Amino acid sequence: MAVTQAPRVSQRGRDAPPSPVRKLMPLAAAAKARGTTVYHINIGQPDLATPEPILASIRSYSESVLPYAPSRGMPETLSAWSSYYAAVGYDIPTDELIVTTGGSEALAFAFMAVADPGDEILLFEPTYANYFGFAVGSAIETVAITLDPEDGFHLPASARIQDAITARTRAICISNPNNPTGTVYDRQELEELLEVAVRNDLFVISDETYRELVFDGLEHTSMLEFDSSEARDRVIIVDSVSKRFSATGARVGCLVSRNPAIMDAVGRFAQARLSAPTVEQLAVVPMLKDPLPYTSWLRSEYEGRRNAVYEHLLHADLACRKPSGAFYIMVTLPVEDCDDFAMWLLTDFDSNGETVMVAPGAGFYLTRSMGRQQARLAYVLNKQDLARAVDILGEALRQYPGGRA
Amino acid sequence: MAVTQAPRVSQRGRDAPPSPVRKLMPLAAAAKARGTTVYHINIGQPDLATPEPILASIRSYSESVLPYAPSRGMPETLSAWSSYYAAVGYDIPTDELIVTTGGSEALAFAFMAVADPGDEILLFEPTYANYFGFAVGSAIETVAITLDPEDGFHLPASARIQDAITARTRAICISNPNNPTGTVYDRQELEELLEVAVRNDLFVISDETYRELVFDGLEHTSMLEFDSSEARDRVIIVDSVSKRFSATGARVGCLVSRNPAIMDAVGRFAQARLSAPTVEQLAVVPMLKDPLPYTSWLRSEYEGRRNAVYEHLLHADLACRKPSGAFYIMVTLPVEDCDDFAMWLLTDFDSNGETVMVAPGAGFYLTRSMGRQQARLAYVLNKQDLARAVDILGEALRQYPGGRA
Repeated sequence: MAVTQAPRVSQRGRDAPPSPVRKLMPLAAAAKARGTTVYHINIGQPDLATPEPILASIRSYSESVLPYAPSRGMPETLSAWSSYYAAVGYDIPTDELIVTTGGSEALAFAFMAVADPGDEILLFEPTYANYFGFAVGSAIETVAITLDPEDGFHLPASARIQDAITARTRAICISNPNNPTGTVYDRQELEELLEVAVRNDLFVISDETYRELVFDGLEHTSMLEFDSSEARDRVIIVDSVSKRFSATGARVGCLVSRNPAIMDAVGRFAQARLSAPTVEQLAVVPMLKDPLPYTSWLRSEYEGRRNAVYEHLLHADLACRKPSGAFYIMVTLPVEDCDDFAMWLLTDFDSNGETVMVAPGAGFYLTRSMGRQQARLAYVLNKQDLARAVDILGEALRQYPGGRA
Repeated sequence: MAVTQAPRVSQRGRDAPPSPVRKLMPLAAAAKARGTTVYHINIGQPDLATPEPILASIRSYSESVLPYAPSRGMPETLSAWSSYYAAVGYDIPTDELIVTTGGSEALAFAFMAVADPGDEILLFEPTYANYFGFAVGSAIETVAITLDPEDGFHLPASARIQDAITARTRAICISNPNNPTGTVYDRQELEELLEVAVRNDLFVISDETYRELVFDGLEHTSMLEFDSSEARDRVIIVDSVSKRFSATGARVGCLVSRNPAIMDAVGRFAQARLSAPTVEQLAVVPMLKDPLPYTSWLRSEYEGRRNAVYEHLLHADLACRKPSGAFYIMVTLPVEDCDDFAMWLLTDFDSNGETVMVAPGAGFYLTRSMGRQQARLAYVLNKQDLARAVDILGEALRQYPGGRA
C-alpha cells in the first residue's frame, strides 16, 4: 500500500524567522498568572492615547456601505499624505504616493519591487527584525554590516559598505531614526550612503516611520532631501502613521517614490491585494493634514522619557550611548546570553512582585552569535514606570545567577 | 564622466499583471464626465448596505488607544471565526485559524507557505485574476488548465489534472463557488481533486469566500468536509468577510489549516507584518458569531439577481450556462475582442445617456489569446439596474461596429 505523506512546507515557510520576543510571550503570561506585574518595554506599542481626531473619525463613520478603497489609496488619504509631507518640508504629489496597510506592507512592496529571488538587500545590524521576515518571504537574501555600539551604531565608512556589495546587491535598506538603536543618521552619512548607491546602481529603501522623533535639537534628514535625478530614481520611502500618531492598530502607511517604474510596479502589487482598510484611511486624514502640533508634543514627550531611561540606566551602571531618536535604546548587559536572562526575568525573578520584559538583542542581528549581550528597551511607558522598570533591571542583574560577560 | 542610470525594477515588478479593468477606469471616468451614466457590473463591490452590527461596532469603538492586534488575530476575532465555522458545520479550533488582512493576505500567505521560487501552483482558468498577481509577487509559477464554458466551467477529469502536474507542482488552487464563473463544484469533483492532490503530495488551497452564495437548493461542499489525515495535512482554506457580510472595505479574512507546520509558517509570516486592523477585527465579531440570518437573506437576494440577469441575457440572445453561485457570470459575446468592445462601450456608445462597464475575459486567463470573447458580469446592483444594464449590453452588441466572432 502506498504511504502518503504530508506535503512539505516551502523553504521560505521553514526559514521565516520568529519574532525575537515570541518565545517569551508564554513566560510573560505565566508570570502574570502568578500575580507578578510585568513592565513591557519589549515592544513598540506606546501607552499613549491615540489622538482624538482619529478616534472621533472612526466613531463617526457614516456611510451605509463599507466599500473597498481604491488600490493606491482613498483620494482623501493620498491628498492628506501629500499635505503631511508638505508640512514636514517635502513636495510629494499624490502620484508619487501609495497608501499601504501599515509601514509593513510598504516594506514588503519595496522589497518585491527592487529584488528577485536570490538578489541581495544590504542592511545594517542591529536592524528592525521584520526586514528579515519580509526578505525571507520574498526569497531575497539579506547581507548585514555589523554596526558598533561604541560608535553609537552610526553608519560605517563608505569603503566598508562598498566591500559588502556584490553583483546581486539591489538595494540598501536603512531605518532612520533607527529601530532598534535610536540612532539618527546625519546628513553627511546619508549623503555618503547615497553616493555608494549611485555608484553601484542600487536603490535606497529608507524607513522613516520615526521621522519626527529626534531629540537634543537635532533636525531629521529625510532621504527625500536629496533631489538629484539619481536620488529621485533610487530613493524609496517607507512610512507609517503608527508611531507618529500613536495609532499602531490603524494599519495605515505609505510608500513614496519619484521613480515612475517603481510606482507602476508597486501599483500593480497593490491591485492584487485590492485595498488598505477604508475606515482608518479616512480616520487619519485630519492628523496628516495638520501633523505638527501633535508631533511636536510627541517629540518632547519621548525626549523626556529618553532622558529618564538614560539617567536610570547610568544609575544602574548600565553604560550606553545616549540615543538621539525613535523610542528605543539598545543596551549591552553584563550577561553572557540575554535570551537566557530575559527568560529568567519572567520565570525566576521578581522585585516586590514586579519584573520587566525586554527584547533580547540577538533577534536584531543576522550574524549568528552577535548581539547576545544586548537588549532593546522601548520607552513606551510613562516616566515613572520606566524608571521603575530600569531599576528592576538593575536589581535583576545583580541577582542573576546565569553566565556573566 | 560616468553616466549613472536608474536601477532596474525587479523582474517580478515588471511582470506583475495589471487588473483586468485597469485600462478601462480612465475611460469610465471620461464617460461620466461627459454626463453618461455607467452601470458598473465589472467589479465585486456589492451595492448592499453593510450589516448594521458591523457599522455600529465601528462607531462604538471606545478604547483610548488603538493598539496592534496580536499577529494571529484578536482573541475575540479568532473565537468568532471558530463560532462561524461551527455555524456552517465545521469544527475549527482557534489554533487552526489565523486572522488576515482580507482574503487577499490569506492567499498571499498560503502561496508563500507552500511554494518557493520556481515552484508551480496549478489553477483552472478562467480564474480569479489576483492569483496571478500573488504568484508573480512571490516568484511562483502558475500553470492553468483551461475549463470549458459548455461544461459550465466544471473541473476536468482527474487524468487531465494529473497530466498538468510536474515535479515542481506544489499545490492546486481553486475558488468555490467560483470567481469569475459562478460555478459551484460538487462533492464528487472535489473528492477527485483531493485524490489527485494526495497521490502527488500536493496542497489544496481552497478559496471559499463565496461559501454561502449557492443557489437552486444546492449545498456547498467545503474542502473542510474531507476529514481524513491526508485531507487535514493538505487543505488550506482562504476566507473573508468581504462578500459574505457585504463589508469589502473591512479587510478581515482568515486562513484555516489543520497542518501544524503550515500554521507555524503562516504564523511567522503574520508576525513580520505585525497585525490586521484592530477596529474591523472587533467589528465583524457579532456577524461571525451569528452569521446565518444574514447569509440566508444574502443568498436569496443574489439568487434573485442571478435569475434576473440570466433571464435578460437569454432575452438579449446571449446564451450562457446558468451559474449556481457567487455573484458572477461569465458570458461569451459575439465579438472578436471583448477588450475592444468594453472600451467602445465607454468611449463611443450610449443608450439614452447610459452605458455599462464589464470586465473583459482575457484577464482571467493565463493562456494568451484565451477568453477574448468572454466578459465577466458581476451582479452587484439591484434587479432593476441589472436588467437595464443587460438590455444596454444587448443593444450595444447590435450596434457594435468592431470585429464579430
